Amino acid sequence: MTIPEDIPAINHRIESLVGTHLAAPAGTHIPQSCSPIYRTVQDQGIISNEGGKRLRARLLLTIYDAIQGDRSNDRSNVMDLACAVEVFQTAALVHDDIIDNSDLRRGRPSAHVALAAALGQLTGHSDDDALPSAVGHITHIGAGLGIMLGDLLSTASIGIVNETVSKLEHSEGILQAFLRMHREVEIGQVLDLAVERVPLDEPGRLAEASLAVFRWKTASYTTVAPLTLGMLAAGIQPCIGSDSPSHAGEGTDMAEAIGSRLGTAFQLADDLLDVIGEPERIGKPTGGDIREGKRTVLLADALTMADRTDREYLAKVFAAETRDGNDVERITRIFDESGAIDKSRRRISQLWSDVRGSIELTAQALRMSDDSRDSVVRCCSLFIPQTLR
Amino acid sequence: MTIPEDIPAINHRIESLVGTHLAAPAGTHIPQSCSPIYRTVQDQGIISNEGGKRLRARLLLTIYDAIQGDRSNDRSNVMDLACAVEVFQTAALVHDDIIDNSDLRRGRPSAHVALAAALGQLTGHSDDDALPSAVGHITHIGAGLGIMLGDLLSTASIGIVNETVSKLEHSEGILQAFLRMHREVEIGQVLDLAVERVPLDEPGRLAEASLAVFRWKTASYTTVAPLTLGMLAAGIQPCIGSDSPSHAGEGTDMAEAIGSRLGTAFQLADDLLDVIGEPERIGKPTGGDIREGKRTVLLADALTMADRTDREYLAKVFAAETRDGNDVERITRIFDESGAIDKSRRRISQLWSDVRGSIELTAQALRMSDDSRDSVVRCCSLFIPQTLR
Repeated sequence: MTIPEDIPAINHRIESLVGTHLAAPAGTHIPQSCSPIYRTVQDQGIISNEGGKRLRARLLLTIYDAIQGDRSNDRSNVMDLACAVEVFQTAALVHDDIIDNSDLRRGRPSAHVALAAALGQLTGHSDDDALPSAVGHITHIGAGLGIMLGDLLSTASIGIVNETVSKLEHSEGILQAFLRMHREVEIGQVLDLAVERVPLDEPGRLAEASLAVFRWKTASYTTVAPLTLGMLAAGIQPCIGSDSPSHAGEGTDMAEAIGSRLGTAFQLADDLLDVIGEPERIGKPTGGDIREGKRTVLLADALTMADRTDREYLAKVFAAETRDGNDVERITRIFDESGAIDKSRRRISQLWSDVRGSIELTAQALRMSDDSRDSVVRCCSLFIPQTLR
Repeated sequence: MTIPEDIPAINHRIESLVGTHLAAPAGTHIPQSCSPIYRTVQDQGIISNEGGKRLRARLLLTIYDAIQGDRSNDRSNVMDLACAVEVFQTAALVHDDIIDNSDLRRGRPSAHVALAAALGQLTGHSDDDALPSAVGHITHIGAGLGIMLGDLLSTASIGIVNETVSKLEHSEGILQAFLRMHREVEIGQVLDLAVERVPLDEPGRLAEASLAVFRWKTASYTTVAPLTLGMLAAGIQPCIGSDSPSHAGEGTDMAEAIGSRLGTAFQLADDLLDVIGEPERIGKPTGGDIREGKRTVLLADALTMADRTDREYLAKVFAAETRDGNDVERITRIFDESGAIDKSRRRISQLWSDVRGSIELTAQALRMSDDSRDSVVRCCSLFIPQTLR
């Protein structure tokens, strides 16, 4: 488990790295009349990186520490690697909020909304202006600057890794794994848009597709990549049990075995809490996914398990443009009474049990101490609320 | 100068590399119900990469060949590096077209427009549908898929370079230079949006800012990076005249000296041809930038050099939402009669003369043969129409 000082250290280091990697390179010149707007984008880059729980960075550091123990002279470099994963997450979220038209992120205005507001102030327009065309224009510029901020943060995350690999004791495969994570998340975002188009009259396919997409869009960077990168930095190839490097693909990928299940359980829990969570604990009102008409595993299970009247209602109400408060209430009740919520609970606790098993096998294969193994279990447990494990 | 076979070879190699780098990685699984949409995005990735003149790839290969001569066993790897620059350009254009609301690119629907249309077909909606909300939805999904395609292509371009550096004879600094190019272009796109907000009553600042932004948004990946990467792949550090590596920044950067001027001249010529070009040669009607109200160096110069009546007219008409055909005609006449067009011509021919001088110095410093030097001059000349050199 990461030490308590790690979270402030991660936050501090992220701010410093983002500042460096979003700055104009040495020897270049930004014209004075453009610098207020570029400064606004840089500042938003720092702000958008604030406020996360740093679960991904902590998982990377925890698996590294569990393998490497106290023998490490390399931990500050591994810290940078952990920060790079967090910066990549921010890049992905900035683009995701534009794609999903989300105005809020971590309780604050999302990046493109904040950029539109800041630009309105800089240029004397605002959303309060009477001219709708000016407002639409500013909104569009906000999205434009948000796209570029996401691109800058994505490049920054790779730049951080590229600078770090030259300093790491074990660097083989790290940049490649980091780029693979980028690719998987980007494919996952496309698949997530595709899932929204799976017909509701085939709930079995919807459940299968949703669960598969969790591996791409969530587990990839939340759990699989942090575990893979932490292992590689500790000099361990995540694949074991293969006889030769050329057969590496045939072995068991330890990071995949733990990470794909943990990441899937994490996303299932996130979707479940959106329906049954306490608003003050999850930091937003429940039912948000239902209002948005999101195709979740819960919905797919309810479409399979509910009685005919409820199934027909669900199909109709999720095909509509919007759902009101009464709909949210009735849908939540159907999710509960059909057994879909219980099924999600069972899915999550089965996955968590599998994760425990995979950690045990990994700990044996890597000859971890019991303390080290327990620290990995504790860190992984942070991804799933206690009541759902 | 690149050999005639290079262009088909570049096209062929780009298609193959994009196909590989946009595919699901080995051992992963895309759920069947999502695969038609992902396939559409992959196909669009190939299509968006078609049709360029490959000037950037050819410049990279030309400077490499000029330094390396016939001694190269490495040319197929350098070819991949050249392709990576082209793939990055496509990534940037896909995002740029979303930001600029551009429906066309290289005479075809731009990526996000094509993706919206393809998705409409897949899911049975289309722009012809009567429901405006469905159309707006599809358009927004098109932008969402376009953002992700740009991200995928950007990651692919870095992935290509990362695979190539391990095979190159001289790889030092190459990935770093490629990531710097990414960062410079991304900053340049932000600055380009900022230039649109420079007040028209300060045309001197507008001209200065526009010219500075050309270095960021155009020269960076069009000329400076291809020259830098080609030199590095040939084992040459672009900085000469410094005594020690720690003073590298103090020497003359040959790629910068040639590239920043050539790229600036290229962009000035592009803006000038938009006003005075023959529509059939530039592949689009003239006056497009004027209709869009783009802040160009031509406009800044005209605002400085025209008489008071014309200046006031320009300030008023460029502050308006739209400009019609009569405006385009009058503005074009003012650009001409104020001497702004002549000034752009003089700027371009001065820059071209400086480029020639910098090539000469570089050829001497690197002890190039006259043939090699001439091939560099010929390749650089492709960036500026003959009538403007």
